[in-house]
Amino acid sequence: MYKIYSYSTLHSFAQNIFLKIGCSNEDATIAADSLLIADLRGVDSHGVARLSGYVRLWEAKRINTVPQIKIVHETPSTAVVDGDAGLGLVVAPFAMQVAIDKAKNVGTGWVSVKNSNHFGIAGSHAMMALKSDMIGIAMTNASALVAPTFSTERMLGTNPIAVAIPAGNEQPFVADFATTTAANGKLEISQRKNEDVPSGWVQTKTGEPSTNASELKNGGALLPLGGDKEHGSHKGYALGSIVDIFSAVLSGANYGPWVPPFPAYVPMPENMPGEGIGHFFGAMRIDAFRPAEEFKLHMDKWIRAFSSSKTVEGQKKVIIPGEPEVEFENERRKNGIPLLESVVEDLKRVGNKFGMEL
Amino acid sequence: MYKIYSYSTLHSFAQNIFLKIGCSNEDATIAADSLLIADLRGVDSHGVARLSGYVRLWEAKRINTVPQIKIVHETPSTAVVDGDAGLGLVVAPFAMQVAIDKAKNVGTGWVSVKNSNHFGIAGSHAMMALKSDMIGIAMTNASALVAPTFSTERMLGTNPIAVAIPAGNEQPFVADFATTTAANGKLEISQRKNEDVPSGWVQTKTGEPSTNASELKNGGALLPLGGDKEHGSHKGYALGSIVDIFSAVLSGANYGPWVPPFPAYVPMPENMPGEGIGHFFGAMRIDAFRPAEEFKLHMDKWIRAFSSSKTVEGQKKVIIPGEPEVEFENERRKNGIPLLESVVEDLKRVGNKFGMEL
Repeated sequence: MYKIYSYSTLHSFAQNIFLKIGCSNEDATIAADSLLIADLRGVDSHGVARLSGYVRLWEAKRINTVPQIKIVHETPSTAVVDGDAGLGLVVAPFAMQVAIDKAKNVGTGWVSVKNSNHFGIAGSHAMMALKSDMIGIAMTNASALVAPTFSTERMLGTNPIAVAIPAGNEQPFVADFATTTAANGKLEISQRKNEDVPSGWVQTKTGEPSTNASELKNGGALLPLGGDKEHGSHKGYALGSIVDIFSAVLSGANYGPWVPPFPAYVPMPENMPGEGIGHFFGAMRIDAFRPAEEFKLHMDKWIRAFSSSKTVEGQKKVIIPGEPEVEFENERRKNGIPLLESVVEDLKRVGNKFGMEL
Repeated sequence: MYKIYSYSTLHSFAQNIFLKIGCSNEDATIAADSLLIADLRGVDSHGVARLSGYVRLWEAKRINTVPQIKIVHETPSTAVVDGDAGLGLVVAPFAMQVAIDKAKNVGTGWVSVKNSNHFGIAGSHAMMALKSDMIGIAMTNASALVAPTFSTERMLGTNPIAVAIPAGNEQPFVADFATTTAANGKLEISQRKNEDVPSGWVQTKTGEPSTNASELKNGGALLPLGGDKEHGSHKGYALGSIVDIFSAVLSGANYGPWVPPFPAYVPMPENMPGEGIGHFFGAMRIDAFRPAEEFKLHMDKWIRAFSSSKTVEGQKKVIIPGEPEVEFENERRKNGIPLLESVVEDLKRVGNKFGMEL
């Protein structure tokens, strides 16, 4: 059911595809880096499995592979970046670097991005800050699949938030999560297996609770983190809204129900109020608050305290955000990246288009 | 069961109590403002109902009513504030003002606070940014009541996050929520009524799911937003952790299981790694990103789209974060603030100590 490929094989393949659709050498490398880090870290839904989706967006003329990405407004600690309809995989690292550079100068940097596209996993962009001893933050809006509390309409995307925090001897703390109860990728897995999903993940077209993994196809919606009001869904709804507003209302991108969809075959919303998809990035220099070494000693203490706290029966340990992803990365760098046969077929088809073999 | 008091009666009463315990005129006013805004906005658990708790902390010599609150480190966009063991109700507005002032200069301001105490409701501090056309952010850690996913130990507080975003003709967007499924205040209400609580709010001492509102008394714990792993509790746990780290590991306050408890009778944790409780504040000038008027037009459009989205049967409308609190405030400014008899009794006892009548 799975085939194993090395990191370098998949990276070259993705890089070459990005070159074929017109990216510069530099952009093709950056885009392949952004994509492959998802496969390495075990976020299979956001890695090379999406490559054909990006190609289809390019075919539909919704992605500009030779964008002039630029800062359109700035202050010492902020900027708005116009992605010029480029690949989010390339626009995001550009914008995150702007945030990091500003943090070097004035302590923190905050960048809102318009006119971009799907940027891969939020975590990889947030993690760019780590090597400069900074906290990194990344978020993005996405096309509407989520119904706010009490609503039957899809008004928000799964709008993920990532926060990467450096530690000393311990691995960094890296949280990266959709602001819904379950990410869409998880729902799709249950759908393929024809399994029910837990309550609180989805609702029907009329807003009834449901455990049917295919509810989205029937006009239903994903639910904000919390599931229903009684379990705090108004908090998940607020979080997803904050991501939407920081990413798009601040920058001039599309927001709420007007965010362009990732699948190229889905028609664009009407009367769009902005440009493309929006992202938001932040970088905070640790030593803008306290000496980095001191901070790291305390982060190690924090991590060890949580890591060694007593577990419920049947669980080995309490997990620190980012820990499973590091295990995936170590294992997959050594033993390769397993791809579902259906993903391999899809990649081969994309390769064929451009006379390339996987 | 309720007695109604005017805002001004309760404000004067609280102000006078703060004067009696040694606050300056200015600080007593600020503290009373911070406290009463909770009563006005319907967050009854964080208003004058807590006044006696602050007095007990002062009696236990855990609050310094004549603090020298000061900036101990800063860059153009950041600062660390030492609250000098002052009332959080006073320390927080000081620190939020520092964030606002920095945002005026360089676009954004970010302040981490150590050596503070309980700061009331997060929302009121975040909202200070609104009148300067800024987005305001406020968060705080709190003493440990929450078990991380898979843990049986209380490692995190209810660690709330507030984000206040200006709008044009519409009311501002103000989200203010604990990073747990349910705030402790809600649990206490069910406890007083001897009612069960929904699944996902609490667990037993050994980490079993429970619907017993008194589970905390039996050594159990509150649960992070999501409730259990299947419903995304690792996301709530990550969020609460981020609040803890930004508030305390960045500033040098106590974090995780070492945060000092609010009830003065609860002994302090041993081997505390920092000073007092920690908070984190942010201010982002809207026009550091795009013209404020343009932003507000789009915020109005955002709010109207969500507000008018179709509802599930039986619900009147989709609620915008902050909307119910505005309704409370309008009603209570006009008709007064209802206090439970038990709260009135408690306030009278505090008044008696200082020869004051309510």
